[in-house]
Amino acid sequence: MPEATHSSLLPEDRVLLEKLLAGERRALAKAITLVESSRADHRHRANELLKVLLPRTGNSIRLGISGVPGVGKSTFIETFGLWLVEGGVRLAVLAVDPSSSISGGSILGDKTRMELLATRPEAFIRPSPSAGSLGGVAEKTREAMLLAEAAGYNVVVVETVGVGQSETTVAEMVDMFILLQLPNAGDDLQAIKKGIVEVADLILINKADINPQAAAFACTQWKNALKMLRPTSPHWTPPILTVSAVKREGLEVFWREVLAFKSTLEASGEFAAKRKAQAIRWMWNLIDAGLRHRFHEHPLVRAELSKLSELVAEGRISPTVAAQQLLGFLQHS
Amino acid sequence: MPEATHSSLLPEDRVLLEKLLAGERRALAKAITLVESSRADHRHRANELLKVLLPRTGNSIRLGISGVPGVGKSTFIETFGLWLVEGGVRLAVLAVDPSSSISGGSILGDKTRMELLATRPEAFIRPSPSAGSLGGVAEKTREAMLLAEAAGYNVVVVETVGVGQSETTVAEMVDMFILLQLPNAGDDLQAIKKGIVEVADLILINKADINPQAAAFACTQWKNALKMLRPTSPHWTPPILTVSAVKREGLEVFWREVLAFKSTLEASGEFAAKRKAQAIRWMWNLIDAGLRHRFHEHPLVRAELSKLSELVAEGRISPTVAAQQLLGFLQHS
Repeated sequence: MPEATHSSLLPEDRVLLEKLLAGERRALAKAITLVESSRADHRHRANELLKVLLPRTGNSIRLGISGVPGVGKSTFIETFGLWLVEGGVRLAVLAVDPSSSISGGSILGDKTRMELLATRPEAFIRPSPSAGSLGGVAEKTREAMLLAEAAGYNVVVVETVGVGQSETTVAEMVDMFILLQLPNAGDDLQAIKKGIVEVADLILINKADINPQAAAFACTQWKNALKMLRPTSPHWTPPILTVSAVKREGLEVFWREVLAFKSTLEASGEFAAKRKAQAIRWMWNLIDAGLRHRFHEHPLVRAELSKLSELVAEGRISPTVAAQQLLGFLQHS
Repeated sequence: MPEATHSSLLPEDRVLLEKLLAGERRALAKAITLVESSRADHRHRANELLKVLLPRTGNSIRLGISGVPGVGKSTFIETFGLWLVEGGVRLAVLAVDPSSSISGGSILGDKTRMELLATRPEAFIRPSPSAGSLGGVAEKTREAMLLAEAAGYNVVVVETVGVGQSETTVAEMVDMFILLQLPNAGDDLQAIKKGIVEVADLILINKADINPQAAAFACTQWKNALKMLRPTSPHWTPPILTVSAVKREGLEVFWREVLAFKSTLEASGEFAAKRKAQAIRWMWNLIDAGLRHRFHEHPLVRAELSKLSELVAEGRISPTVAAQQLLGFLQHS
């Protein structure tokens, strides 16, 4: 396979590339728009651009930040982001919100949010692509992450909407997954996705200023709870920290733990191994999605799938028989 | 789709069917062997048999029992099983152990295990099918479960080997997932699969006789930990119980909770809904596996997959490009 070269790009995309590599925010925004487009010619151009950029990616720490609605994700990200950029960091904030296509954007879509951070030239903020399925949204966010890295952003934060399956998806595309919690832990259990606590590399008790005693108690509760769960790495015990986004307290300690996480997992080789495994899983997710898409398009599958699914749900035919019948349609065409 | 009838069966399978429905253990064993066979004619006969039997299935409570090696799963299942059959229950014990094809059977394969239970006519014990992949093993176990139900077994226990992915797979095929733990909780964290605590409907602290204080403390620790996790149902808080398989203590309390779980989830409609969702997911697992199988068989995929996977892992091409290229092979053939 020949290496991709600049010559595979349209003249306008060559200009875009140069500007993006120079760190221009507008070029990054434009490149992400190209990546998010569903037009075939845009997709082709996006692929060519990504091919050229790929060697320039990977130089950031990728942080996933999740938590139920109301936990204060946006306020925390803005406060933390401002603190980071004041320290010379270039920060990109992306979002995964598969509901945004229905609701018109429930996170980051609201322009009044993170408005202080948005004015900073060192920060780049992008709402969730509104591309329907979680898989589609996630794929475009992953590519936006690569573009941001090529544009020189050294911290990428991916915010999740905090409902549905988006947390798991985000956990699978970042280096470190951070769960935001309120001090009144336990009150919002129904809203936390099952299994998500066990993939958290760090738990942040936000709004600690409101009730410091409650926050300290929540810390202890979480510490005890995590003792009973498998750590995310044999070399890392997820810290539980308190933070107050409003009072800008706890940011430095948090950042120090992020850097400690990175250096610990780099030393053990897990950092690189995790990214490799994520890339392979991403490829397989796309392959599976593609295979399912082709499957759904087969005329006989289209004609029979819903009826067979219903019979399976009603226990009238076995899943094996239904699957064999549907797969058989592909064989004989 | 016409209803399957006895007339679709071979004469010998009609005899097998009658004996199985009469609850004969040897007939059940023979039917499971048919289901486990990889021969195409056996598969066809198994499907016909399952079609006829399907209306007779579903009348059991399906229990998944998991826990790390050494926690005492087999001893617990034998003791509990003996207690159950003494109470008039008919019990089938199946196993999911994808490693059994390599190791020659690491759970239930050893004939000296559960030997007391095995002598009881009300009990049916079957080692894990040794069919290689976890998906294959799981499918055969699901079908064995249906056969056992048709044969009148009203409790089906599926034991997992307690390593790898088998716990998740078993959790997805049973009504209630039970996690066995040792009193020295926290010592064996590395061995518990991530995410598995959050799907447990009940936690049993086994070997409570060895150190009752430690067992009571572990109970408290687990209770506190589960408070911070999302319950498996809005109507069910997973109980933490102590049990001593050796001393036959705690069995009745455990069984009472199993029945309470069943009636609670039946009342809320979740019991039936869960089985429906499991059947649909099972169908899709089989479809995905079938689609992947076809994908892997394509000559161009066979030729290029490992090279492209390597390039993705090394970060030299993007997962999107690799997936598109591989899927493209299917298009042009």
